[in-house]
Amino acid sequence: MPAPIGFWFDFTSPYGYVASELIDALAARHGRAVRWHPILLGPIFKMVGTGPLTQIPLKGDYSKHDFARTARYHQVAFRLPEKFPVGSQVAARAFYLIDDADPARAADFAKRVFRAYFAEGRDISDPAVVMEAAAASGADVPALTQGLAGDAIKDRLKAEVENAMKAGIFGSPWFVVDGEPFWGVDRLPMLEEWISRGGW
Amino acid sequence: MPAPIGFWFDFTSPYGYVASELIDALAARHGRAVRWHPILLGPIFKMVGTGPLTQIPLKGDYSKHDFARTARYHQVAFRLPEKFPVGSQVAARAFYLIDDADPARAADFAKRVFRAYFAEGRDISDPAVVMEAAAASGADVPALTQGLAGDAIKDRLKAEVENAMKAGIFGSPWFVVDGEPFWGVDRLPMLEEWISRGGW
Repeated sequence: MPAPIGFWFDFTSPYGYVASELIDALAARHGRAVRWHPILLGPIFKMVGTGPLTQIPLKGDYSKHDFARTARYHQVAFRLPEKFPVGSQVAARAFYLIDDADPARAADFAKRVFRAYFAEGRDISDPAVVMEAAAASGADVPALTQGLAGDAIKDRLKAEVENAMKAGIFGSPWFVVDGEPFWGVDRLPMLEEWISRGGW
Repeated sequence: MPAPIGFWFDFTSPYGYVASELIDALAARHGRAVRWHPILLGPIFKMVGTGPLTQIPLKGDYSKHDFARTARYHQVAFRLPEKFPVGSQVAARAFYLIDDADPARAADFAKRVFRAYFAEGRDISDPAVVMEAAAASGADVPALTQGLAGDAIKDRLKAEVENAMKAGIFGSPWFVVDGEPFWGVDRLPMLEEWISRGGW
């Protein structure tokens, strides 16, 4: 089986959310698995010298318009949450705890977190909302609660973000297929052609 | 005839260059004309709080890789110029002087300037290189030289950049079709579908 597609995202990234609704089907068309990697854009934006799209002059208005347009284009339910962005640490940490036991369950959890935020307008910085998604995906909630209380998972997420930056990742969604990086949900057609043609 | 596609770009924008090689054929497929608008990204980047892509940590390396990959994807000759970016004021001012007399000639001139910089590695901040492109496109070089020496064309370009910013334009290439804005050469497929479907 060919190597999985690496998929990096922040749970508060609208384009990351749209990608989360598309990537599994794309991968399946090419007999690939997907490795999901939630990261935090905060420290990355600091390094790149930028901030949340919606807060940047000019870019903000276009982005808000384009989030909704892109979601409609892909027929994905979307509403920009009132509180945007919010902290996504708890959701990301929970992901890795679930992922260590069962990657498929973690991917299901990730999709639920994204939908809770961007389709249902729920506040995913609230641990109760994260736990609800975890329970719905069949995770062991008591074990998860215990894991989230420790320091190890904080260090783990920090390491995941640092590794992403070391790999040159600076945005969400981000994909790597056979070593080739692609940034942005609008690059999925190019990524798919890259797989089909084996590059160019 | 439906409204023309508006096309904004900086002559030193690699993605703007790739777009300049694609936009006419796209427009022709839909019975549209193209209105070319060179602008200067310098003052826009200042407002948005960013800078040339290649100079941004992490983003720089990805961008250089992606410029070349995108050009190959579209089968457009491309080499990142040694001197990058350079000032594009002279080329942009020359464009508007030519455009006032003959828009089709100005579009041809624009394509020649882009190719001189990104395919041939010539320094388009050098007025001699700009004049060569103007001559090749059949422009009146003595009249152009005279026009470039005056203040009116400087004010004109400044106004074009200010108008672009007022319209919310903050990147290159930028397209507007029937009032709908699209940023980036990678959005051309979406733009084309927007035309075909009349939006969504």
